[in-house]
Amino acid sequence: MTIQDGSDVLILLGDKQFVIKIVEGQKFHTHKGYIDCSQLIGKPFGSYFKTSTGHSFVALRPSLRDYVSKFARRTQIIYPKDACSMLLWGDIKPGQRVLEAGTGSGALTAYIAQIVGKDGKVYGYDVNEDSIKITKKNLERLNLLSNVELKVGDVTQGVDLDNIDTVVLDLPTPWLAVKPLKKCLTTDAHFVSFSPTINQVEKTVLALKEANYVRIEAFETILREFDVKPDATRPKTLGITHTGYVVSARNCV
Amino acid sequence: MTIQDGSDVLILLGDKQFVIKIVEGQKFHTHKGYIDCSQLIGKPFGSYFKTSTGHSFVALRPSLRDYVSKFARRTQIIYPKDACSMLLWGDIKPGQRVLEAGTGSGALTAYIAQIVGKDGKVYGYDVNEDSIKITKKNLERLNLLSNVELKVGDVTQGVDLDNIDTVVLDLPTPWLAVKPLKKCLTTDAHFVSFSPTINQVEKTVLALKEANYVRIEAFETILREFDVKPDATRPKTLGITHTGYVVSARNCV
Amino acid sequence: MTIQDGSDVLILLGDKQFVIKIVEGQKFHTHKGYIDCSQLIGKPFGSYFKTSTGHSFVALRPSLRDYVSKFARRTQIIYPKDACSMLLWGDIKPGQRVLEAGTGSGALTAYIAQIVGKDGKVYGYDVNEDSIKITKKNLERLNLLSNVELKVGDVTQGVDLDNIDTVVLDLPTPWLAVKPLKKCLTTDAHFVSFSPTINQVEKTVLALKEANYVRIEAFETILREFDVKPDATRPKTLGITHTGYVVSARNCV
Amino acid sequence: MTIQDGSDVLILLGDKQFVIKIVEGQKFHTHKGYIDCSQLIGKPFGSYFKTSTGHSFVALRPSLRDYVSKFARRTQIIYPKDACSMLLWGDIKPGQRVLEAGTGSGALTAYIAQIVGKDGKVYGYDVNEDSIKITKKNLERLNLLSNVELKVGDVTQGVDLDNIDTVVLDLPTPWLAVKPLKKCLTTDAHFVSFSPTINQVEKTVLALKEANYVRIEAFETILREFDVKPDATRPKTLGITHTGYVVSARNCV
Repeated sequence: MTIQDGSDVLILLGDKQFVIKIVEGQKFHTHKGYIDCSQLIGKPFGSYFKTSTGHSFVALRPSLRDYVSKFARRTQIIYPKDACSMLLWGDIKPGQRVLEAGTGSGALTAYIAQIVGKDGKVYGYDVNEDSIKITKKNLERLNLLSNVELKVGDVTQGVDLDNIDTVVLDLPTPWLAVKPLKKCLTTDAHFVSFSPTINQVEKTVLALKEANYVRIEAFETILREFDVKPDATRPKTLGITHTGYVVSARNCV
Repeated sequence: MTIQDGSDVLILLGDKQFVIKIVEGQKFHTHKGYIDCSQLIGKPFGSYFKTSTGHSFVALRPSLRDYVSKFARRTQIIYPKDACSMLLWGDIKPGQRVLEAGTGSGALTAYIAQIVGKDGKVYGYDVNEDSIKITKKNLERLNLLSNVELKVGDVTQGVDLDNIDTVVLDLPTPWLAVKPLKKCLTTDAHFVSFSPTINQVEKTVLALKEANYVRIEAFETILREFDVKPDATRPKTLGITHTGYVVSARNCV
Repeated sequence: MTIQDGSDVLILLGDKQFVIKIVEGQKFHTHKGYIDCSQLIGKPFGSYFKTSTGHSFVALRPSLRDYVSKFARRTQIIYPKDACSMLLWGDIKPGQRVLEAGTGSGALTAYIAQIVGKDGKVYGYDVNEDSIKITKKNLERLNLLSNVELKVGDVTQGVDLDNIDTVVLDLPTPWLAVKPLKKCLTTDAHFVSFSPTINQVEKTVLALKEANYVRIEAFETILREFDVKPDATRPKTLGITHTGYVVSARNCV
Repeated sequence: MTIQDGSDVLILLGDKQFVIKIVEGQKFHTHKGYIDCSQLIGKPFGSYFKTSTGHSFVALRPSLRDYVSKFARRTQIIYPKDACSMLLWGDIKPGQRVLEAGTGSGALTAYIAQIVGKDGKVYGYDVNEDSIKITKKNLERLNLLSNVELKVGDVTQGVDLDNIDTVVLDLPTPWLAVKPLKKCLTTDAHFVSFSPTINQVEKTVLALKEANYVRIEAFETILREFDVKPDATRPKTLGITHTGYVVSARNCV
């Protein structure tokens, strides 16, 4: 695969990373000199280049994780470790109809839209109009908008949808959405919700029990990155110690 | 969605779970009486039923996670928390060409095959012939074999493939596969590997550095399940304290 | 140091451990034959011996952690990882006056009594009379009762003590003890409390804030044991995933 | 207890903490105005005062943990969570003879010296002369030097001591000290060692096995601090994700 005029590339320069669009004739300015886009065109992804000041960099195709980490945003972007748990516990797969509430900047929306594909559908809600606009822009860039319908709205008031396979929540009060959303779900739909506090988890689980959900699970994942050196390997000293909890469940008749 | 003759269902009975195929007229025997399959047919998934001895159970469509947890197996099945990290860090998406080595019983193969879809392809290798047979059977049941090619073989001796987007390893000596596989990969391919010991991680990371891989990451995820009760919420007391580490990287020219 | 008639010894036999008292002429029966006590007398601690059936064992002086793990008990014994945090965060040191409530079987009491020494004092309370009896017996065996005063009582009703340097709680409702105990404490006394649920932590921290405590800290410690083998080192697969949380604070005028 | 001329106090001012010595007539300058020492004298510890610019602060007796966190230092100070594990696993108690190697700035030395008391003894070694000087100064301030003997020296070359109850190591190569130190230990002495990398742990454990140590344990403790707010409690977002591992064992004849 070669880099072309218009390609998105992930630039690894020193310990920084950028996602940029290669445009013939343009320059991209960095903390270590500028990148001459023309120089990259026609070369394979994964090649090494030099900035104007002689610093070496690599150009790769951005992964979805790279794109998402660079999304324009209003709020905290969900971490990959949490996104991937929600995708798997929520059984997100090709052809599914997913209702997502609290799209924020569209990070989770992007992951879901990519997996459900053209036979699937994502209905994304957020109470904040700017969030919906940002999500739209972020997904447009990734060509992931064709199977996504975005709407300003508060799902705790119910939504006009049916046959939803999986409902995905990133809301301050997910427990308030449990009952109102029940009627738009398939009879054994998946429910996944992300919350930073344990109090939200408790309320959500109790609301799910009351609404006859089964297989209710609540968990957190702690990701520990390692510094690997020959004969001196150890977890990193500082890092993220908490993001949030996932609640997962199955609807019942 | 209604349960039909031939449907797979996930049965939740007490604290046990089974995945069974509903066959008109058949009985499924459990520790709490038998389940009369005919009784389920025509009812919606997510309904409650009773066993012959009056114990209540729920019947759901099995998620891929449910299927995988019930896979016939020769070896330890990869945990969902690790599978989902590998899928996301490996940028597994529709249309990709994936090389997986150490398919074991096909758990990771199933997740990958489902996501890459009919435009993608999974090449699965294992040195053990029985593993390949088991994987085949497990994937067949899930209709996930059409885009999967399985082969008995040792990838540390190289493989005859090209343009692989992501290589996924669950091998005792992943570091020995780094160099031999490089030439079958795209120039900026994704590499993800799973290993139980930190020594394997160290060797793999060093082999990747030597083979000019970049963006090398090594991490573990610790999943903590919670017991949620009104006003008495806490992590579970006993559980799995370690599964393994993930190494992720990008190929370079 | 040699083993004597009357010495306590920690026996390591296979993967089992026992704390026994060596009595001249007595036999101690195990799952792998009996131990002839007389055989040990006069030999150094740390020596190897054989049971009647030829199984090898080692005899060591029991550490306080060994004793405590073998305590007669009515309730769960506090784990060493939590005990040591409470001792250090509570600034337990020689000469201190400590009020402990919820002595249970006396595990924490033993640790505290040993450190505060003969110039210090531990006042131990439990609402359960049997707990107090068990604690008494456990501490007697260790000669740790001389600076300990044990009493059946509910400290949430207040206690008749003064100048307490550190209050140590292992109660179902520690928040109810915050106010009643304030007047028996030194003006800047240490407060440490252990609770299994996060709801207890929240209530205790809020009660401490209301009672003008400062430097309030809430934390848990997760202990991960490792299996160390040459070139194959990793955390253990299964284990304890949660014990409880520690709340620590300082009194204020 | 009242603050006196010459008292050490822990000042809590905003989110900062200082340990200062109160000297009649002196002023202590902070980021929020100065503290007039005279104003504190005669008032109880745990009282609130105001700086020259009207900011409120509390004055407490420093705990040993507070002192240690403010120690003059050449190297990283051991964290309380690790110090307390080593004290408990090493069975440090009144009257013991302890050999500590790699005293650094004396943090662990202080904890040990306080517990072993006047009937015990700490022999502290460090290869670095400045470390020994700093440790001396740090312990002097705490009146903890009377039972401590400090010496510049490399314990992997052996030491001229006997009847050591517990050996405590914080060395880059603890495994090299295992054999040379064996002859200065009691026959069933305790061994505890702290190391940041897993490679050090592996080598130390294997050296201990070779030297006939028993009850060998290797572990890490992960401390998670919580943000507690009414109905919004959660672990802190950022923090320390790794300090090091503890290896613990018992000597044998």
